[in-house]
Order: sequence, then structure tokens, then C-alpha cells
Amino acid sequence: MSLLNVDAALQILLEQARAAEGLETVTVALADAENRVLAEPLLAQFAMPPWANSSMDGYAVRSSEVRAGHALPVSQKIFAGHSPEPLAQGTCARIFTGAPLPEGADAVEMQENTAELGDGTVRFSQVVPKDKFVRPKGQEAMPGDEILPAGIRLGPIELAMAASLGCASVTVRRQLRVAVVSTGDELVEPGQPLALGQIYNSNRTLLMQCLKRLNCSVVDMGILPDDAQLTRERLAAMRDVDLLISSGGVSVGEADYLGQVIREEGELDFWKLALKPGKPFTLGRYQGVPVIGLPGNPTSSLVTFLLLARPYILTRMGVAEPLAQSFTVPVNFAITTAGVRREFIRVALVEGRAEKMGHQCSGILRNATQAHGLLELPEHSTCAVGDSLRFWPFSSLLN
Amino acid sequence: MSLLNVDAALQILLEQARAAEGLETVTVALADAENRVLAEPLLAQFAMPPWANSSMDGYAVRSSEVRAGHALPVSQKIFAGHSPEPLAQGTCARIFTGAPLPEGADAVEMQENTAELGDGTVRFSQVVPKDKFVRPKGQEAMPGDEILPAGIRLGPIELAMAASLGCASVTVRRQLRVAVVSTGDELVEPGQPLALGQIYNSNRTLLMQCLKRLNCSVVDMGILPDDAQLTRERLAAMRDVDLLISSGGVSVGEADYLGQVIREEGELDFWKLALKPGKPFTLGRYQGVPVIGLPGNPTSSLVTFLLLARPYILTRMGVAEPLAQSFTVPVNFAITTAGVRREFIRVALVEGRAEKMGHQCSGILRNATQAHGLLELPEHSTCAVGDSLRFWPFSSLLN
Repeated sequence: MSLLNVDAALQILLEQARAAEGLETVTVALADAENRVLAEPLLAQFAMPPWANSSMDGYAVRSSEVRAGHALPVSQKIFAGHSPEPLAQGTCARIFTGAPLPEGADAVEMQENTAELGDGTVRFSQVVPKDKFVRPKGQEAMPGDEILPAGIRLGPIELAMAASLGCASVTVRRQLRVAVVSTGDELVEPGQPLALGQIYNSNRTLLMQCLKRLNCSVVDMGILPDDAQLTRERLAAMRDVDLLISSGGVSVGEADYLGQVIREEGELDFWKLALKPGKPFTLGRYQGVPVIGLPGNPTSSLVTFLLLARPYILTRMGVAEPLAQSFTVPVNFAITTAGVRREFIRVALVEGRAEKMGHQCSGILRNATQAHGLLELPEHSTCAVGDSLRFWPFSSLLN
Repeated sequence: MSLLNVDAALQILLEQARAAEGLETVTVALADAENRVLAEPLLAQFAMPPWANSSMDGYAVRSSEVRAGHALPVSQKIFAGHSPEPLAQGTCARIFTGAPLPEGADAVEMQENTAELGDGTVRFSQVVPKDKFVRPKGQEAMPGDEILPAGIRLGPIELAMAASLGCASVTVRRQLRVAVVSTGDELVEPGQPLALGQIYNSNRTLLMQCLKRLNCSVVDMGILPDDAQLTRERLAAMRDVDLLISSGGVSVGEADYLGQVIREEGELDFWKLALKPGKPFTLGRYQGVPVIGLPGNPTSSLVTFLLLARPYILTRMGVAEPLAQSFTVPVNFAITTAGVRREFIRVALVEGRAEKMGHQCSGILRNATQAHGLLELPEHSTCAVGDSLRFWPFSSLLN
């Protein structure tokens, strides 16, 4: 079986995700909408700002009436949040940042360029050009403008933007419901004693936390025993799930009970990815529910989740741009033997240069905790000190 | 008053944060520890892996007993999670990935390089060097190794690492309790009708969501009215708070009731930062509680929070490295006039190059929703197309 290119694998996954039925829309309060995916574009309902206003503490004027060295009487004081009178001819108005410009005024002079003369007038030290320190009505948006497009994830900035539009709630996609299962008789949950041959299950924690970051609703199905009948019962009891993710054990191996049970009620494709770490990857369907099978080694599971499962999940969630942000950085080490698989190397950035973190064995998660992200070394490539390669920060991949 | 350099401002804030009393430690279940700050180093309690194991599905052998083209009888089958018998002389053991190596074996050959002969023996196509496909005991860690240092934030990878150490719970700092208040008679909460002169409050949403991302415990104090007595009562009612963050209104202006009330019960420093957007910034103390006053304009509030308040808060939380990750990127626009303030420009990365997003007015949040982060243009500097500048991704700043 030849190796499947990572880009081709991603394309297949994204096509399947786009072909899946879209998630229903729900309306949620703004405070509960963090990391939700906007289902409809958010339009401005009014001009922003709704009226011309001052961007400084100072004096609102008719610019044509200001002469350098001359004073104008102050006819009113306009605080932010209060409604002004029209500006009387031949006067100025004390005005504060954010306060509406009075009718008739067309500029603001900052207080530092004026002098209060103590007789209710203010002297201007220079002429004031029209529009100075004025934020015009509609500067940010006009009614009907699309402010936020459908398909974006709502982070702090987008939610603040929605608040500034006056939205107390937003229409978003419902959460994707993802069941997580680990397989392998060798796995023990943390806190339990460990017998010879057993290891602690770290993938369950990894996947559940990554899915929480994506704001999925996670169904914890625990560790499946290496037993066909028990596996059959556990899968049959699964309800209301949009996706099943497993780690470990789905293979053509003799001890693959999960793969066997899935094939009884659906289908299963085994891929050998041109990817290091992370060669074995499974895509299937159990009773109509899509199944993604990740390899069991901790970093294989991490890399395949972040590079393949994550964009698939974001696309299912309705996100228009499911790929993480990446950067080009210089590398501080050499790799002299080209591999047939694309390699994702755990690196830290030290003064902007990628440094390889320890042993890159797929069974070792420790150096991922010391790394800042993954450096992509293309298949059939080597690299020398100073070369530039693509870097995927964990802050972006785990976002 | 001269402008305060951003680095100097950050140093003052970090020093104050480091001088503050450390947060108490608490023990929380691993599943609830996301984004918590580790209070004590996490050490390996046992070797990882605890025993040599196979990194392939294949056959465990004494390497000295394998000759190319010769067969060995299969004396046992070792699944992951099961405890093997010692390897009988002159035999091999069927072994699966992750299963413990039997005593006496020193290598594994992958099944693809063997042939089952149907008589209970397996032929090896080549010699097998010692240690082949063996993950030695302690490859990842030895007992007593520091696996995770104190002062890191626990993300999905760190929590998975803790799980692999067998930790069902971790000792972390308690949450920082932060009260958020907005000031200004012009502010109205989303969902309410808007009168002339009023705008919707977006900073409350922005700050609360940013603080949630930092895993702070947020106390929502809403909008303070422009009234000294009401402000006094609201602040006096504040309980069990480690930090008060305000946006808008703390200034030397006439309508600054919050500043007045804080000074009655504490102290307040006004800074004019050499920062654009975000010049006005306040640092103070009310009845012993540190106060940070951010400017009211949406992007000024955003930039000062991310660049100054966030590292202060992370340091208070016990985080050892409170600064976000930044990158150098080429810019695709020119700025020909040098400013006296350091400018943080909202940019998107288009094919790796920074593109300026629309109107950079501090009152406009809209382009921040279209931007990927902030590009740093140092004070007294210009830039030309192709120059490289520091870029702060929102994915890192809002992490």
C-alpha cells in the first residue's frame, strides 16, 4: 500500500466534512457565544458611530469662526452620553471625548491648544481646519454593512464587535457532538495502579481538551476493552453523536476489535499517511456516524488530530477557514537524510529560530510540552541551518 | 507630561505583579485543570516507559539468534497490556506495538520483513540488529525527572503529559479574581435601546472574554454611572477581588468620578504611553486592591489589555513566561511618517505578508475582526514594503 500524501488526505477529509449535513442554528446570549461559529452574517443596523462625535476633550466649533489668538464664548458643555443643543452662532461648546458634535459644529480643537480666559470665553491659539478631531457618523459602518461574515469563530474581538452592534444574542451553529474513545488493554486511567505492561491513557485527556478548545460537546466513552462483544455493546449504546474519534487500535492487526465492529455496521478505510509522526489513520462510518481513527502513540495522535481531524471538525462546525495560521521561520539545525514522509518536528523558537526539542520518537510527548509548535519538513527534503521552513505554533493549532 | 515608553510601562507592571502576594494553591482534577497554572513542578514517579516495549507489530527476538532466510518457532504471543513470559532460547515471540519485550529479547523485527511458514515458525528475511524497534525503559523519563515546571499554563498537551504520568489531579494556583467595570454615561448594554449620544458597551464583553481565556474568575461590575456617590457605593461593595480593571473615564477630566473615588481610598498614577492606539493608561490601588484603568476606545482598550494588562495578570497568576509569542514578518505597505509613539497596526497576513486593515482609528474595532494580529512599528520609525517587523498574532495574544 503506497503512502497517502498529507494534502490529499486533508482534501478528502474536508470534502467529506463539507458534504455532511450542516449543524442546526441556535440563538445564544452573547456572553455564552465564545468560540461558537456564526451562522448568519451580522449586519450593522445603524450607522457606527450613529452621529459625528469628538475624538478629544476640547471645544467644538464652526471652523470658519476660529481665528488664531481670538476667543469665542462657551455656549454649552457636552458630556459623552448627553444630547447637545445646536451650536449658537459665534460660540464654541466645551466637549468631551465621545460626545456628539452639536448641530452646526464641524471641528473640535483639543483643550491643549486653547486657553480659558476666565470670563466664559476660550482663546484659540491657531486656526482649526474643518473635520479636525471629528469622528464622522458612519466612519466604522453604515446600516446594512456586513460586519461579521457567517462561518467565523466568535472570539473576544468578534464578541465585542457584536456587542458594539447592540446584539444581546447571536445566531450560531449548535455544538458538534463528538464521542471520544481509546482502545487498548494496556491503557489505564490516571489515578489507578499500573501493572506490568500497562501505561496511563494520555490520549483521552489530549483529545477531550483539544475538542473543548474547539467548543465541541464531548462524549467521553472511556477505554474500550479488547473484546469484540463489549466493543459492539458500547458502540451500539452511542446516541446523538456527530463524530466518533478513536485513538489507538484501529488497524488490520489481530487485536483490532473496534475496526471489526465498525466494519460490521459500516465501513472503514485504512490510510498509510506520508506523515511522521502519524502514519496510520482511519476514516470510516459506523451506523452513518463518521469515524476518525487516530494512531495510539501520543505525538502521532497529537499531530494527526491537529493537522487532519481539527480542520475536518472545524469544517463540520461551519467554519469557513479551518486551517491554523502558520509562519516561515529560520531553522537552527540540519536534517541531512530526506524521508519519504512529511515530518512535523517539535521545535521551540529561540530568538526567532527553530530549535529541535529532544527525541522525536512518536511515543514521547514530553518534548511537545517544551516545544512552541510543529516545524514542517516536506517529504523528500533535507534542511540546513538557516533554511526557512513552515512553523505551526501550538497557540494557533490548539486555538 | 512626557510619554512613557511601552517597555518601561511593562517593566513597572511586571515588577508590581511579581511583588504581589502569590495566589494560594489548590488541587483540582485533571479534567478541570485546563488553563490553570501549575504551582509545583510535576516529577516522573516511575520510568517512562516503565519497561522496554515494541514500537512495531512483529516478532521479538534475541538478535544474535536471527539469521537471514532462517526460521524460528513462535513460543508466545504478547499483546499490549499483557505480561509476557521470558523468551525461550531459540524462539521468537509474536508481539504487538506497545507490548512489553519479554525477558531475554533485545530486538523486534517488523512483520513485513518476516514470513509465517504455517508450521508455527517464522522466517526472517534479514538479520536483526540489537535494539531494533525497541523503545527502551526510561526513554522518555526516569523517576524524579522534572516533567513540567511550576509556572506553566496547562493546555491540552501539558494535561495529556500529566495524564501519562498517572496524575488524576494537579496542584495549581487558585483563579485570579478580577472585577471589570466600564465607565461613561454614554454606554448602554447590548439589547437596550440607544438614545442620541449613546453607544453600546463593547469593552465589557471584550475584557470579560479575554479574562475568561486567561481562566480568571470575573466579577462583572457593569457600567458605573457618572456620579461620585453611586461610584463610591459600588466600589465599596466590591469583595474578594485581586484586581479591578476599568475601561474608559479614568482621566484627569471633569467627569472622572471613578478616578476621584479611587484617590479617596488609595492612589492613582496616570500614564501617557508612547503607544498608539492606547495613550492614556492608569495604574493605582483602591483599598489595597490594584487597579488598572484602560482607555475607553475599543482598540485602545484591546491593545493596552493585550500588551500590558495581560502580562501583568499572567504574572499575578504565577505564570513564569507571561509574554505572547511573536514573529517577524515582511510588510506589504509603507509608513513614511515616523511617530513618537510605538504603533500597533491591525494587519492580516496574506501569503505571509502583513497587509494593513482599513482605518486604524482607535474608535474602530471592525478591522480588528478582519485582522490576524498586531504589527509593531517602533517609535521614531518608518517602514517600506518588504521591511520585516514584529507581528503579534491574536491567536497568541488571546490565548
